[in-house]
This record gives sequence, structure tokens and C-alpha cells, in this order.
Amino acid sequence: MNRPGKNKFSSLYERERKKIDMRLENILKKRSPKSLYDPGAYIINSKGKRIRPLLVLLSAKAVGGKFNDVYNAAVAVELLHNFTLVHDDIMDNADKRRGRLTLHKKYNNNTAILVGDSLLSVAYEYLLKDCDSNAKYVISSFTRGLVEVCEGQSLDTDFEQRKNVSLNEYIIMIKKKTAALAKTCCEIGASIGGGSREEIKALASYGTNLGIAFQIQDDLLDITADEEKFGKKIGGDLIEGKKTYLLIKALEKAKSDDRKILSEVIDNKGIKPQNVKSYKLLFEQLGVIESAKKAIDSYTRKAIKSLSLIKKKEDKELLTWFAYILLNRNR
Amino acid sequence: MNRPGKNKFSSLYERERKKIDMRLENILKKRSPKSLYDPGAYIINSKGKRIRPLLVLLSAKAVGGKFNDVYNAAVAVELLHNFTLVHDDIMDNADKRRGRLTLHKKYNNNTAILVGDSLLSVAYEYLLKDCDSNAKYVISSFTRGLVEVCEGQSLDTDFEQRKNVSLNEYIIMIKKKTAALAKTCCEIGASIGGGSREEIKALASYGTNLGIAFQIQDDLLDITADEEKFGKKIGGDLIEGKKTYLLIKALEKAKSDDRKILSEVIDNKGIKPQNVKSYKLLFEQLGVIESAKKAIDSYTRKAIKSLSLIKKKEDKELLTWFAYILLNRNR
Repeated sequence: MNRPGKNKFSSLYERERKKIDMRLENILKKRSPKSLYDPGAYIINSKGKRIRPLLVLLSAKAVGGKFNDVYNAAVAVELLHNFTLVHDDIMDNADKRRGRLTLHKKYNNNTAILVGDSLLSVAYEYLLKDCDSNAKYVISSFTRGLVEVCEGQSLDTDFEQRKNVSLNEYIIMIKKKTAALAKTCCEIGASIGGGSREEIKALASYGTNLGIAFQIQDDLLDITADEEKFGKKIGGDLIEGKKTYLLIKALEKAKSDDRKILSEVIDNKGIKPQNVKSYKLLFEQLGVIESAKKAIDSYTRKAIKSLSLIKKKEDKELLTWFAYILLNRNR
Repeated sequence: MNRPGKNKFSSLYERERKKIDMRLENILKKRSPKSLYDPGAYIINSKGKRIRPLLVLLSAKAVGGKFNDVYNAAVAVELLHNFTLVHDDIMDNADKRRGRLTLHKKYNNNTAILVGDSLLSVAYEYLLKDCDSNAKYVISSFTRGLVEVCEGQSLDTDFEQRKNVSLNEYIIMIKKKTAALAKTCCEIGASIGGGSREEIKALASYGTNLGIAFQIQDDLLDITADEEKFGKKIGGDLIEGKKTYLLIKALEKAKSDDRKILSEVIDNKGIKPQNVKSYKLLFEQLGVIESAKKAIDSYTRKAIKSLSLIKKKEDKELLTWFAYILLNRNR
């Protein structure tokens, strides 16, 4: 598969990412009470990749729409995403996010609960700014994304209590927890951009498959990333005993002794930080790192294949390029 | 002021309350994962007064609309209300709600955070069912209500950290925390019901003033209610050192020794349960119970006054009656 290198698309990404950053920076500045919106600003101004807003923009462009028509919607999906991060971090008792203290560690749990809620409320407020006659469709898509994110998070929590989780169940979970929102981004971008039903459907499929690839990549990065660039502790998922793509696949592949060692992650609800390296080695020996890379590649191909009916060649190339940079990210 | 007694309106209220209860009971039944929706059902099936759904129904009727057109919206506001209850109860570390364990005590904090989020997501889903060409207006009103509820909760939390809170600041807070959602109920009921701009505005004012009266009544009930009917501990606000209408008004009125005794509630961040009775006595001596009753009466009058342009006499009487039963409730 061809992998387009750094080109005019990266400058477009950088330019639009900065625009999103600037908009996010201004959203909560003038609002009060400060006790609510300052912590909100703390999280939304931390340097995220802004993948979801970009998906909104690129989907609008792919159907002939303008970036200017979807900036508020783009901001809305990022706010929704940050709402999930804030609440998830409380539930996971996570210390760090994007290289900084998580919101509930910097402030406290009560503030984090309320600030999360408020980010979601402002998300709807911004989404509405870009809606008109399509309001019902756009907000339905956004709401469906939200419903599924909650369901996915609940499934993820259920998995913590279970001994065995199949790869199929895992895929269903990440489809809801991660891919549903990516799908929503593409749907609302394409809808506000004026796309046809078929175009919206095609981009929704692009978003879903990209989202699945993205989450498996996330699981992979937890063990293969450079800690500094990653902004989080390497092997955090193993330390917490999380049933990731890697662990589930490893348990499927492993036999006898290896299986016993892997089961310890689940039985002991996590491993000691000093053992991360030996588990990484075991993952490599079992070919699980390779399996994850193949799965990421396969879902990314599926995503790109969905783009066949996008009219302009450049738009198709842009979305293809975007899929590849997500695939090659280091955080 | 005439206070209409038990009449045909109470049977309408009972009938519609039951319908809302039945709808709420069915909403989460068939959804999965159970780990998410069973705790959600636990809270929404606890016997609430369903005041907010009723406001939606009565507002629709008042502008010539049909109950059948707004049942989903009515359910949506109750879901939104329950979302706030679940998260507020975590923040307040409350043990009981409607005579039963709070959701986070029955399950745990993580479940309660996520279930709250999910109730809000389902709220939007249901609201959308009753929207059509008016979707943008209706969802904007709903979202504004949500934004303000979060802001009000944040102000309420701020007040906990402060020594002095004026009655004016208190009113601003409850306008957001409680009255904004009541206003939303009336706005969306009147909008979906097909009301004119003036009718929607009039009903919004009814909702706002009723909401303020309702919250002051809530503060009053905390000290004057019958514990069994109330479903919560009497004097809970005092025990937690909450800056209620009563405490703020008492601090305004009290002199020398009384002032010192009242300041202890704030300085010590609450009182011992055995001292609730003596504080109640002090409130009575200072005429604060009477002041609260007068304020409730005054906001209720304002609410009723807003109804002048409602066309049908019966609809006006029904909304007036509803204001009175809220005023005379015991929980």
C-alpha cells in the first residue's frame, strides 16, 4: 500500500488544527462562573491531536462543503470528546493526560464530574450554531454517538470484571467506545456540508473503520510508544490489567506456560510496572504486535475503500492521507 | 389568594403522572448493556413527582397542543432532571433520594458518573423524537437549560467555600440550578404544542418563577417537612452547612448572639444532627420561615400573572392549580 509522505496535506492539517485550537481557546474564556469554565479551559486547551474536528472538516470538504460552515460542529465534537476524557479519567483514576495532570487530579472529582457535564452542554450549544434545516439529522447523529460512547464505556468496565473476553466482543466494545464518535464526526460534517445520503453513508463507514483502527493503534501505542511523546506511562494498560487488543489476542495465541503468565495480568488485576518489559517481549514472541499492526492496516484499508464515491480526487487523497497519519502517529 | 382544592385537575395530574411513570419504566428495559441501563432504571423508576414532565404537557395544552405530541419531550426533561440528581448526589455525598439509596451508594461512584451521562444521552434521544421543523428551537432551549443547570450547580458549590452569600446571589444561583429547567419545560412544551412567540415567552416566565418558588420551598421543606413523607433526613441542609434561603435570610436578620450562632453553621461547615431542632426554633423566632413562605407566595403569584394571555380559561386554571399544589407539597 502506498503511504503518501509529508506534503501539502500536512500544512492543511497544521493550519486547521491551529484554527480549532484557537477556537477552543476562546470558547470558555468569557463565560462564568470561572469555577466551572476555567477547569474546562484547562482540559480543552491541552494540546490534543484534534482528530475528530478534522474529520468533521474533511468530511464536509469531501462532499463539496466549506470548512467555514462546520467549524462550530468541529469544536462541538472535540468538546464531546473532552467530556468523555474527563469522566473516563475519573473512572480510571488516571493521573496524566496529554502530558499534564488529569482534571480531577489538578482539581478534584466533584469539579471534574461537573466540568465534564458542562463541556457536553457547551458541545450541544456549538453544534446547534451550525445547524439549520438539517438540525434533527445532525443532532440525532451527535446524540447517537454520545449514547454509544456511554454504552462502550460501560462494556469496557464490564470487561474488567470478566475473565474471558473474545476478540469479537472487544471489537463491538471499541466500535461503540471509539468508532461511534468518529462515525458521528464524518456524518455531521458530510450532512452540514450538503452531502447526499450515499456520500454521508460512505463517510460514516470511513469514520467507523478509521475509529476501530485508531483504538487498536491506541492499545498498541500503550506498549510500543516513546513515553515522552506519548504523554502517558508506557504499559499503563498492562499495569491496570486492561483487556486490550494485545492481551486478548495474546491469550488466544498463547499455550501452556505463556498462557499462565498472561492470565496473571487478569487474575491479579494488573502487573507491576517493572514487569512491563517482559510482557512486551512475550507479546513480541507471540506475534501479537504484528497481529495488531495487521488489524490496524486492514481496518484502515476498509476505511479508504469506503471513499470510492467521493467525487474529487484531491478530497479522496486527503482523507487517505489522514488515515495514514493516524496509523503512523506516535501518541 | 384563592387556593383551588382537590378537583378534576388532581385526577388529570395523577393520570398523566402514571403515564409518564409507565413510559419511563419502559424506556431502558430493552436496552443493553444491562450494567448501564439497569442502574439507570433504578433511578428513573423511583417515584418522583414528575413535575417537569407535567410542565411540558400543561404548556403544550395551554397553547392548544396535544399531550400525545409531547410525551417524548416530557420524558426527556425527566431524564435530564434525573441525570442532574445522580451527579449531584455524588457531589453532595448524599445517602438517600426519594426514600431509597442514592445510585452511587447502591452501586458505586464510577457507575453513577456513567449512568448520569447516559441518562442525558437518552434524554436528547427522546427529545428528538418529538422534534421536527422546530428541532433547532426546541433543542436549543433544552441545551440552554442544561448549560444553566451546570452553571447553577457550580455557583452552589462556590457558595460552600464562601463566608457571605447575599440573597440576590442566592436567587441568581437557583434561577440557574432549578428555574432554568422549569423554564425549558414550558418553552419546549409550548413550542412543540404550536404556541406563538408571545405564548412561549409567557409560559417561560411562568416556568422561571415557579422554579424559583419551588427551590425556596425545597429549602423550607428541609426544615419543616415530615421526615417519612419527605424521604430524606430533616435538617440535612443545616447538617451540611448549605447556604439555603433560610440560612441566608436568617443571617441578614439576626443580631449579636443569634448571628454568632448562625455563623457557626458556616464556620464549622455544618451542625450536628442533634442541633437541628434548636436551629429550627431560631429560624422561627427570626421570622425566617415566614419570610420563605412569603417569597414562595410572591414568586408563585408572578408565575400565575404571566398566564394572562393563555386563551382557554380551563388551561389557565389548570396551570394555576398546578402552581398551588407545588406550593403545598410535603416532599
